[in-house]
Amino acid sequence: MDKLKPIGIFDSGIGGLTVVKTLIEKLPQESFIYFGDTAHLPYGDKTRDQLFGYAYSIIDFMRKKHVKAIIVACGTHSAVTLPSITEEYDFPILGVVKAGAKSAARLTRNGKIGVIATQATVNSLAYTKNIKEINCHLDIYEVACPRFVPLIEAGRLEGEETRKAVEEYISPLLRRNIDTLVLGCTHYPFLTPVIREFIGDKIILVDPAWETVEEMKDILKGQDLLSDSGILPEHKFYVSGDDSSFYEVGKRLIGDVIDRVERINLD
Amino acid sequence: MDKLKPIGIFDSGIGGLTVVKTLIEKLPQESFIYFGDTAHLPYGDKTRDQLFGYAYSIIDFMRKKHVKAIIVACGTHSAVTLPSITEEYDFPILGVVKAGAKSAARLTRNGKIGVIATQATVNSLAYTKNIKEINCHLDIYEVACPRFVPLIEAGRLEGEETRKAVEEYISPLLRRNIDTLVLGCTHYPFLTPVIREFIGDKIILVDPAWETVEEMKDILKGQDLLSDSGILPEHKFYVSGDDSSFYEVGKRLIGDVIDRVERINLD
Repeated sequence: MDKLKPIGIFDSGIGGLTVVKTLIEKLPQESFIYFGDTAHLPYGDKTRDQLFGYAYSIIDFMRKKHVKAIIVACGTHSAVTLPSITEEYDFPILGVVKAGAKSAARLTRNGKIGVIATQATVNSLAYTKNIKEINCHLDIYEVACPRFVPLIEAGRLEGEETRKAVEEYISPLLRRNIDTLVLGCTHYPFLTPVIREFIGDKIILVDPAWETVEEMKDILKGQDLLSDSGILPEHKFYVSGDDSSFYEVGKRLIGDVIDRVERINLD
Repeated sequence: MDKLKPIGIFDSGIGGLTVVKTLIEKLPQESFIYFGDTAHLPYGDKTRDQLFGYAYSIIDFMRKKHVKAIIVACGTHSAVTLPSITEEYDFPILGVVKAGAKSAARLTRNGKIGVIATQATVNSLAYTKNIKEINCHLDIYEVACPRFVPLIEAGRLEGEETRKAVEEYISPLLRRNIDTLVLGCTHYPFLTPVIREFIGDKIILVDPAWETVEEMKDILKGQDLLSDSGILPEHKFYVSGDDSSFYEVGKRLIGDVIDRVERINLD
C-alpha cells in the first residue's frame, strides 16, 4: 500500500523538527522518517559541491527506505540543491523556500520583506528570486545569521549571547522598515520568542513550515497518497553525527515523539 | 604645515592597497600611512563589537601619527563602524561604501545592481541603504564572498579554486540579470581578471576606490589641505600581524612603493 509509506524529511540537524511539529499537527496519520545530517552541520558555510553531495546521499537513503515523498525541511538545501535535483526523482520533493516566499508575498502590506537565513541560502538569492517571481515590485532584504544554527543546536535558545545575535542580525532589517520577516532556515523558529521580543508585535513572522506542509497535503491528496488507515503511524529519526541535540533540544519542541535516534553513516 | 601631514588609510589586510594605487595615481604628492590589521583578518566574520574595537584602536593610532584625514579603505568598516564613528573625530573620515553606491546608481542602465562584499558588509545592508537613498527604484542584490579575502591574502589571485569561488558567488547575481557589479570589499579588485573572465564584457564593474579618492581630493581642496609642496611624499606601511602578503601580493599591485612594512601591536 503506497499510502502507508512514510514521508521523508531532512535537515542539517534539529531545524527540520519545526516542520515535523507542523506535520504532526496537520497530518497526524502520516508515518515519516527524519534524517538530521549532524555530521555536516552547519550547512550555511558549505560549498555547492558539498551540499549536492549531501543531498544525493540523503535522498538515496530515503529512497531505499521507500518514502512516498520528501520534504526538504532545510532552507539551505531548498535554496541551493533542490531546484536542480527535484526532476531526477520519481516521487514529489518539496522544499521550504517556495512556500515561504508565497506566504511572505501574500502577507506583506508595505512591500518590504526581510529574510533571515544561512549564508548559503542568502547567497543563492533564492528567496529574492521566488518572491520577485510572485511580485517584482516587492523589496526583499536578506541577511545571513551564521551564529544562529550553532546556538540552537547547542540548546542556547535564550540568554545574553542569543539576544545579542538576534539584535545584531535583525537591526539592519528594522532600519529598512520591513513589515514581514521570513524565518528562512528551519532552525530559526526555535528562536521565535527571542526574535519576537526584539522586533515587537507589529512585524509579521513567516515560518515556511505551515505553507510547506499544506502543499505536501495537496500533492499527496492529488496523487491519492494520503494515509487514511487507522494504523498508528511510525516516526523514525536518524542522524549522521552527534545526536545529543535531538534528545535535549528536540524534545522541548515535540516532546515524546522522539523516543529513539539511530546514528548512521552515509559517506 | 597641515598640508604636509599624511593621509591615513586602513584595511584588514592588503585590500586597501587597491585604494592606495588610485591615491598614488590621482594625488601623487600626498604622503600617507597605511595600516593593515592582519592580526584580525578576515573582518567579514567578526561581530559589531569586535569591529568597533578595531576601528577605535586604528583611528587613535593614526591620530597620534597626526594624519590630516582618513580613508577607511575597507568595505566592512565603511559599512558597519564608520556611520557611527565619523562624528567623533575632528578630521575628515571617508569610507568606500557611499562612493561605491554613488557610482553604481549612476552607471546602471537596467536598474539591477549586484554587490559582492564580506558577510559583515552584506548583513549591514549598507550598500542597499546607500543606493536606495539615491534611487529607491533600483534593485540591489547583495552576496557575501567569505572565501575571497583568505584566497587573496594567500596570493591565490587565479587558479581553479579561485575561479570556482568566483563562479559560485557571482552566478546567482547573473541569474538576476544585473548590469552593474560593485566590488564592495577593497580586496576584490585583486580578482578583477578572473571576475571579468567569468562575467564577460557586458557588465559594468564598479571599484569604489576611484570615486572615494575623488571625494577625498574635493574635501582636502575645500579645506585647503592638499599637499602642494615639491617635497617627496612619504609612504609608510604598518601591519598588526602577518606581513608576508604585503611583500608578495602587495608588490604585484603597487610595486616598489612598499619598501618596508613595520609590525605593531595596537591591542
